[in-house]
Amino acid sequence: MPDTIPDSHRDLLADPTVGLLTTNGPTGYPQTTPIWFVLDGEVLRTSLHRSRQKYRNLVRDARATLFVLDPTNPFRAIEVRGDVTIASADDTTFLEGLLEHYGTTLASFQAPADDRIVITLTPRRVVTLG
Amino acid sequence: MPDTIPDSHRDLLADPTVGLLTTNGPTGYPQTTPIWFVLDGEVLRTSLHRSRQKYRNLVRDARATLFVLDPTNPFRAIEVRGDVTIASADDTTFLEGLLEHYGTTLASFQAPADDRIVITLTPRRVVTLG
Repeated sequence: MPDTIPDSHRDLLADPTVGLLTTNGPTGYPQTTPIWFVLDGEVLRTSLHRSRQKYRNLVRDARATLFVLDPTNPFRAIEVRGDVTIASADDTTFLEGLLEHYGTTLASFQAPADDRIVITLTPRRVVTLG
Repeated sequence: MPDTIPDSHRDLLADPTVGLLTTNGPTGYPQTTPIWFVLDGEVLRTSLHRSRQKYRNLVRDARATLFVLDPTNPFRAIEVRGDVTIASADDTTFLEGLLEHYGTTLASFQAPADDRIVITLTPRRVVTLG
């Protein structure tokens, strides 16, 4: 059953802050990487390149967690644990919107824009601090 | 075989920054929580209360990762994946040193100082960004 994102900490997911996405690695160690993401209603979405280890991890095991620390208060945070679904991206529409949310554009994006997928994280358990 | 912490990113572990510790939760979801920690030579140490879920997770599965994002540059980070060992703390010596590193004292510490253990994370795989 999905969990909800409380209004008290929704800003941490709605604002363009860096999220720490942790997936289950192939040898049983968790693996954390910083990502850009957008809050879309009650789910979180990001764009990943198919060459990335975290993409391979999510194909094997859909369980993940996204953690955001308040950049202005290290005692305030939100963690969203959930299940990921993967969709192929036919064009760069989603990626362009994601980049715009972080104040940049496809033209100045430093990573490959092709061969990407869209990841959707549906919250199962939300934990807040502060 | 242990991995080493590169000098290029050692400051992120040596300075009193917030670390994001991820453990393997009981239902297979990774679980991330912010911690204070100290770098002791080539290992990382923290103090946990026995009542915490992350302590129970580490008793069950010693595999963990600690991630530190540079507070002044969101494109610079270090991740240390490794194995945890747990030692009982006979007194508050370690905790007091940890608190001092973060500029505070046992007298102003907001959590229980008793019934704690000392966690040591030995790096197996170190990943840096930026």
